[in-house]
Amino acid sequence: MWAFINDKWIQAEDATIPVGDLAIQRGYAVFDFFRTAQGVPLFVNDHLERLVRSAKALRLPVKYSTDELKEIIRELLQKNNLLSSGIRITVTGGVSPDTYTPAEPGIIITQQELVMKGQEDFQKGLHLITHEYVRDLPAIKTINYIMGIWLQQKARIAGADDVLYVKNGYISELPRSNIFVVSYGGSLSTPASNILEGITRKQVLHLSKSLLPAMECDISMNDLIKSSEVFVTSTTKRIIPVLTVNGQKIGEGKPGPVTKTLYNSFLELEQKEIAKGW
Amino acid sequence: MWAFINDKWIQAEDATIPVGDLAIQRGYAVFDFFRTAQGVPLFVNDHLERLVRSAKALRLPVKYSTDELKEIIRELLQKNNLLSSGIRITVTGGVSPDTYTPAEPGIIITQQELVMKGQEDFQKGLHLITHEYVRDLPAIKTINYIMGIWLQQKARIAGADDVLYVKNGYISELPRSNIFVVSYGGSLSTPASNILEGITRKQVLHLSKSLLPAMECDISMNDLIKSSEVFVTSTTKRIIPVLTVNGQKIGEGKPGPVTKTLYNSFLELEQKEIAKGW
Repeated sequence: MWAFINDKWIQAEDATIPVGDLAIQRGYAVFDFFRTAQGVPLFVNDHLERLVRSAKALRLPVKYSTDELKEIIRELLQKNNLLSSGIRITVTGGVSPDTYTPAEPGIIITQQELVMKGQEDFQKGLHLITHEYVRDLPAIKTINYIMGIWLQQKARIAGADDVLYVKNGYISELPRSNIFVVSYGGSLSTPASNILEGITRKQVLHLSKSLLPAMECDISMNDLIKSSEVFVTSTTKRIIPVLTVNGQKIGEGKPGPVTKTLYNSFLELEQKEIAKGW
Repeated sequence: MWAFINDKWIQAEDATIPVGDLAIQRGYAVFDFFRTAQGVPLFVNDHLERLVRSAKALRLPVKYSTDELKEIIRELLQKNNLLSSGIRITVTGGVSPDTYTPAEPGIIITQQELVMKGQEDFQKGLHLITHEYVRDLPAIKTINYIMGIWLQQKARIAGADDVLYVKNGYISELPRSNIFVVSYGGSLSTPASNILEGITRKQVLHLSKSLLPAMECDISMNDLIKSSEVFVTSTTKRIIPVLTVNGQKIGEGKPGPVTKTLYNSFLELEQKEIAKGW
């Protein structure tokens, strides 16, 4: 498997970065991650746009234009010939002489096989617990997942699959997913603030337009618990129903009709993207 | 310069870690940093103890005992023959197959030249601004310094040297230093919570015992502004007076007598440590 590290093509097993890079010294780096299906990178413009936005927010200039990045991705796809995959682009703080001030950014582009969750995982759904927390600089896709990883044990002990961040009674997101709530009144909502704006989230908001009223707003724990359906979205999960939160059943505690409809619409959208090619 | 990376001695310029390591993928790593003076690592037991504590808190088993780490440090000192230096030990989340769950931890031990701040920097003191923030998991020395680095620009624009974190009116710490406050009543205090327990902080609390009443407690912004002296402590700074906070003068706006006395006591303590050897 080929990787592109600091301007060089290299075999993935030899892909390393200097220990002096601020990513390792200070956790200072941003990244983005997208899928390829049948060799087509999905929603790649959205992902590259967000990468550039994240890098800019951390004041890390990306030395390649979006078009140049696409050329590198094209070459990566040709070299590795991997049809279903995840591609990750990381922009690091670079090797800093004082181990603190960002220097010339490093760039890491890797591809890996990716087995997607299927119908079975959709049916199984997710059980969540909550944790009082808001991420730092949530709109920026930094590499900081310490809290999410650290909370894995708490989730495991509670018999849950993942953690939902809540602050002062309002929900925001999961460590690697956005969350949506369907009210009994038939409207869809998703938190407006303290979140990373997911690309699947954006597509779901778009798809929902022809189906039901949808809005980005503040959502309380009370709204969540009283809702008819809850689901999460992410690049690797697409759409997965949430069946319980802190042991409390959401709606009937099984995948609901709105979630199913949106899931099917999303699969169709994916097929259209694949058919379009790039 | 030699470095010790994942069980191998290697030249520092060749020191790299795999891009799959969770330090790079998810910012999941802890570290500690200590000085050597005249070839003697200062307060090394305190630093190694804190490293082990940090690693344990992030559930990263350190494969070397403290004694084994000391042997590696001894070898590092012999190989590099660098008398005044900083030594950094990083324990990383390792290369994780799912890029999320901690695997076998990586270990990185590097040494670098270190020019210490001197009398002139002490006289110049520091000008701080405040920022509403508490670090995640503050007691653990993770590699996450995103906020501190990100705030450098805010400090620069304000003409300040560094940032003091404040939450709901209470001060905690700087990104890389602890803070102490001397009241007009002649007592010393330092925040008790939401901090990394610095090794210099610990030594200063110890040194203060024979000099003035000292306590770890909650300190409000109001306490800070009304105080007679403020100083910060860190491994690389030792003790440096704070002359202004958000443009407001502390005491007479120059290094105060308690700060000076503690600074001299600390220099003496350092000399004793050096004389003891290890």
